[in-house]
Amino acid sequence: MTVYADTRFQTRRRRLASTLAGKRIDAMLVTHLTHVRFLSGFSGSNGAVLVKKDVTALISTDGRYTTQVGEEAADLELISARNCGQALLDTLEGPRRVGYEVDYVTVSELESLKRACPEGVTLVPVSGVIEEIRLVKDEVSLEHLRKVARIAVDAWEELLEAGELTAGRKESEVAADLEYRMRKHGSEHTSFDTIVASGLNSAKPHHGADDTVIQDGDIVTVDFGAHLLGFNSDITRTVIVGHTTDFSKEIYDVVLRAQLAGIEAATPGTRLVDVDRACRTIIEDAGYGDYFVHSTGHGVGLDVHEAPYASVSGQGVLEPGMTLTIEPGIYVPGKGGVRIEDSLIIRAGAPEIITDTPKELRLV
Amino acid sequence: MTVYADTRFQTRRRRLASTLAGKRIDAMLVTHLTHVRFLSGFSGSNGAVLVKKDVTALISTDGRYTTQVGEEAADLELISARNCGQALLDTLEGPRRVGYEVDYVTVSELESLKRACPEGVTLVPVSGVIEEIRLVKDEVSLEHLRKVARIAVDAWEELLEAGELTAGRKESEVAADLEYRMRKHGSEHTSFDTIVASGLNSAKPHHGADDTVIQDGDIVTVDFGAHLLGFNSDITRTVIVGHTTDFSKEIYDVVLRAQLAGIEAATPGTRLVDVDRACRTIIEDAGYGDYFVHSTGHGVGLDVHEAPYASVSGQGVLEPGMTLTIEPGIYVPGKGGVRIEDSLIIRAGAPEIITDTPKELRLV
Repeated sequence: MTVYADTRFQTRRRRLASTLAGKRIDAMLVTHLTHVRFLSGFSGSNGAVLVKKDVTALISTDGRYTTQVGEEAADLELISARNCGQALLDTLEGPRRVGYEVDYVTVSELESLKRACPEGVTLVPVSGVIEEIRLVKDEVSLEHLRKVARIAVDAWEELLEAGELTAGRKESEVAADLEYRMRKHGSEHTSFDTIVASGLNSAKPHHGADDTVIQDGDIVTVDFGAHLLGFNSDITRTVIVGHTTDFSKEIYDVVLRAQLAGIEAATPGTRLVDVDRACRTIIEDAGYGDYFVHSTGHGVGLDVHEAPYASVSGQGVLEPGMTLTIEPGIYVPGKGGVRIEDSLIIRAGAPEIITDTPKELRLV
Repeated sequence: MTVYADTRFQTRRRRLASTLAGKRIDAMLVTHLTHVRFLSGFSGSNGAVLVKKDVTALISTDGRYTTQVGEEAADLELISARNCGQALLDTLEGPRRVGYEVDYVTVSELESLKRACPEGVTLVPVSGVIEEIRLVKDEVSLEHLRKVARIAVDAWEELLEAGELTAGRKESEVAADLEYRMRKHGSEHTSFDTIVASGLNSAKPHHGADDTVIQDGDIVTVDFGAHLLGFNSDITRTVIVGHTTDFSKEIYDVVLRAQLAGIEAATPGTRLVDVDRACRTIIEDAGYGDYFVHSTGHGVGLDVHEAPYASVSGQGVLEPGMTLTIEPGIYVPGKGGVRIEDSLIIRAGAPEIITDTPKELRLV
């Protein structure tokens, strides 16, 4: 049997190496664990990768992960050490310009790395280069993202079907049931702490899920996601318990219209500020502009929040293969709030909604 | 009704201020979220606190958390901003020496903070000061730690009682059931990804929980913890499925003896290296020294791994009110492994075992 190696990691390292060459950098020391995994496949909690401009690469981790790194990143030479970054620098001979991740390395870690540098090795701050490579996802990554989004959607539909989101239950119980269902569908853990915000709590965009008992007439906003093989999902649905009020019906309608407008705007070539604008205008026109206190959306991938960002100051334009959430909300302190969120894959034409499940106003 | 404010946060800020005075620092900018919560009570995902040497303090967070910060940290003046650290620096007038958290602030964050400094304000690196205040826990914190440990223990006992850890089930299913039970007992989320390592996987100290089906004769190591109100728990139990082998029986016996010796050594005044030594000697004497590839233990509190550290290079001595895990293990690649872990509160005399549940060799 021929075993075909997973070439994604090498492709990514090649792209990184080519960027380095353009910056006259001889090697890049990668210590941010999400990026270690992105470039090597290794998923342990301690590790670093050194990618040289000739595309050769070394990996370092400690004794706890010897077996695991052999399975996950068999193609890379292993340097076994506890202080992985320092150990990798130690393999170099000067003169060399070595990039480090200025957005993740702490001030004290940089001091340690500098002390570990062999003579003639100079550390050079590098920002955003790997994020740039992550921005447009390859097909395997998109397949993972569809799968981890499907886990969240399936769990949500089952939760409603089972009547587990209902008056008389605590927010935390609903969250526990939803998480258990995601776990059963293969989620390794949640992609962030599940939000079940009922009644007045729904006016807090980042309420968690506490002992509050869900009441008849409550708005309940549920924001959740699964995690699988490094990838995250992110979806929000809002339901209303028992009966609507003029207020709950009105803000639900405004948020839903804003969300649909945001999705419609999410096409290749559109500026991120214009996606935000498409959502925000509808909420502003309805008189709730002051109550939409966050941005419209963000990319989702190895991080649950990653570039691109659709906000009033969002940078750049959408391209096919990027991901983006569209998640407008209205939060009126002392009254309640609504948020509706989908995760999209940007495609030529209309985006692919990977969290596709009904979002018309629903009574539970 | 008189409302008594929770004075713990002010006590901690007072201790911080007194340390600052000794370092000729006028104020400390705290941006590490765990420390923001420790010093203010605020638990949101974006925030910073500025503590001045006169013990006055400001807090900053963004619009998403306006309601929440008013509830959790009502005694602090609020500066509403997205870039919290920069906004707090901006309230100062020079000349001032302002400490920042060198172990958490990234190199690029420091650059941003420097740019935000008003004229005459100088940033000074500070390391370990808040960790030092966290080292000995106050009684309220210890009560939280007992409670979050109890959640893990109760879930574990129920899991065994229900026969959910048994041959024929997947590791991930067992993990899901255990996590669900912790959630039902009040855990907000796991304190780290649950480990259910069966058969050969048990030889990997940091295996997760995957699709591997548990087999008759397997060793199964389960390492898990709950999280509540910022506090974490951490416990490991190892069971054997169906029947023991000479190998599984032997390494279980060695690890258990080592673990009991570690607990016995964990008394006030004992050096951390000697706690590690007490465990390690027993494993070395049994001929498995090369297979005990990690340290003996760590503190547990707001972080699941925090000071003090019981290792071959551990610093300092134990004091009453510190916490410590004792978690020796033996991992033989290609054969299997065993780890047994308890979390302790150091007390005059014998430590208090807050993860108390049977650990004699148990067949499931």
